[in-house]
Amino acid sequence: MSNSTLHIIKIGGNVIDDSDQLMIFLEKFAAIPGKKILVHGGGKIATRLASDLGLEAKMVDGRRITDEKMLDVVTMVYAGLTSKNIVATLQKYGCDALGLSGADANVIKAIKRPVKDIDYGFAGDILADSVNTLSIKKFLDAGFTPVFSAITHNGNGQLLNTNADTIASSLALALSELYETSLIYCFEKNGVLTDISDEDSVIESINVESFEKLKSQGVISEGMIPKLDNAFNAISKGVKNVYIGNALNLHLFQQGKFGTCLAIK
Amino acid sequence: MSNSTLHIIKIGGNVIDDSDQLMIFLEKFAAIPGKKILVHGGGKIATRLASDLGLEAKMVDGRRITDEKMLDVVTMVYAGLTSKNIVATLQKYGCDALGLSGADANVIKAIKRPVKDIDYGFAGDILADSVNTLSIKKFLDAGFTPVFSAITHNGNGQLLNTNADTIASSLALALSELYETSLIYCFEKNGVLTDISDEDSVIESINVESFEKLKSQGVISEGMIPKLDNAFNAISKGVKNVYIGNALNLHLFQQGKFGTCLAIK
Repeated sequence: MSNSTLHIIKIGGNVIDDSDQLMIFLEKFAAIPGKKILVHGGGKIATRLASDLGLEAKMVDGRRITDEKMLDVVTMVYAGLTSKNIVATLQKYGCDALGLSGADANVIKAIKRPVKDIDYGFAGDILADSVNTLSIKKFLDAGFTPVFSAITHNGNGQLLNTNADTIASSLALALSELYETSLIYCFEKNGVLTDISDEDSVIESINVESFEKLKSQGVISEGMIPKLDNAFNAISKGVKNVYIGNALNLHLFQQGKFGTCLAIK
Repeated sequence: MSNSTLHIIKIGGNVIDDSDQLMIFLEKFAAIPGKKILVHGGGKIATRLASDLGLEAKMVDGRRITDEKMLDVVTMVYAGLTSKNIVATLQKYGCDALGLSGADANVIKAIKRPVKDIDYGFAGDILADSVNTLSIKKFLDAGFTPVFSAITHNGNGQLLNTNADTIASSLALALSELYETSLIYCFEKNGVLTDISDEDSVIESINVESFEKLKSQGVISEGMIPKLDNAFNAISKGVKNVYIGNALNLHLFQQGKFGTCLAIK
């Protein structure tokens, strides 16, 4: 067990789709000192490319079905275009970024989601021992900043489309065995809000006890509850803190003023 | 100066375009022991994708003009689709592959080709000190097999489309300072042939002296001369050997029976 700290930062689709916001975010990300990892979601570029190629987006219950052609599209966009442009921008800002899919250095294995009622196609589910902490540690110790796209592999030559939030939390859980790990979800709101229409109503910190209280009082909006449940699950399994806040405020993180901090107590 | 050996293997478009041949080649590549690097060219997938997207291929004197949209296409295909599928296949065959563009870990910087008579767009030229041997050594020493796509960056956030043969020879020149480096060009012929229509007419070895003789006798076909000039240039600058042979015969390399071997003497 090392006392070295690690920040795992997840950036979602809205910022990735806005190249100006993405540049601002990446400059702030590059400025965070110490060991860190970036996990990026997809954004709308893949959807647009699929549409330009005449591919029909197949969705069931709001979840994308990844057929073979769609897998090629997301591999091209997430692990190619988006990853390499993010990496090149981070290099510009002095951050020694290294773009990784799960196949690279075998960092994240997944299994093709089993077919029950719905066949999700080439969607990957991450198992408990899927994260190759040894390889990731080598990169971090060598001074590189891993940048994960949401593509994994099954170890048998098959790439798989995987949820980026799940990649971020799986990395955090696995790497908390080696580092004092914080998981930082960046999105378009300032944090967990008591009034969803008021960006100044950020709850600065929530612990297990106050989370239950806020839920029972109906203060936290319903859409936020599954996110927070996941966050507290990560914390209960060894992740030190989870933060939720605005991507464009990431510079406030070092000052302890970033979004909402979730912790055990 | 380490005595450790390094094999840098370049695979061209013809094999990449044939998924069965590519699998066979990758299994043979994975079986080569010791430190190694794969450099892959593009193939026709990028051309097909560009065409499907209604982009016009712009060529001048047989060289591609890389405009902004074409840069996105080659980044998606070379550094995304092709790279990640090669890496996933190598992982299946037990080779701990790591897909890299030049931006990743800042391994290869290039400059945008200066505009003289022709503006080649986002084409990257590699300078003498462009290869980051320190980062590549870290990967090799950690047991990873770097897989290079033909995308570089300028260090200022701009990705650049770069010739894969040039990437292979630049890597070989730079890394020959650290390793006893062999450069192996894999293509669809069995080697340098005395009779271009006879695959059994492979010249087993050529040195500087015999190269001049073969040239003056007109034995070597004209198209092969620039390739060999480049190869002997690499050898004169420190690369130990250059081999040229058939991708599907790579298993013969360990037995010393692969294609044509070029050396000083």
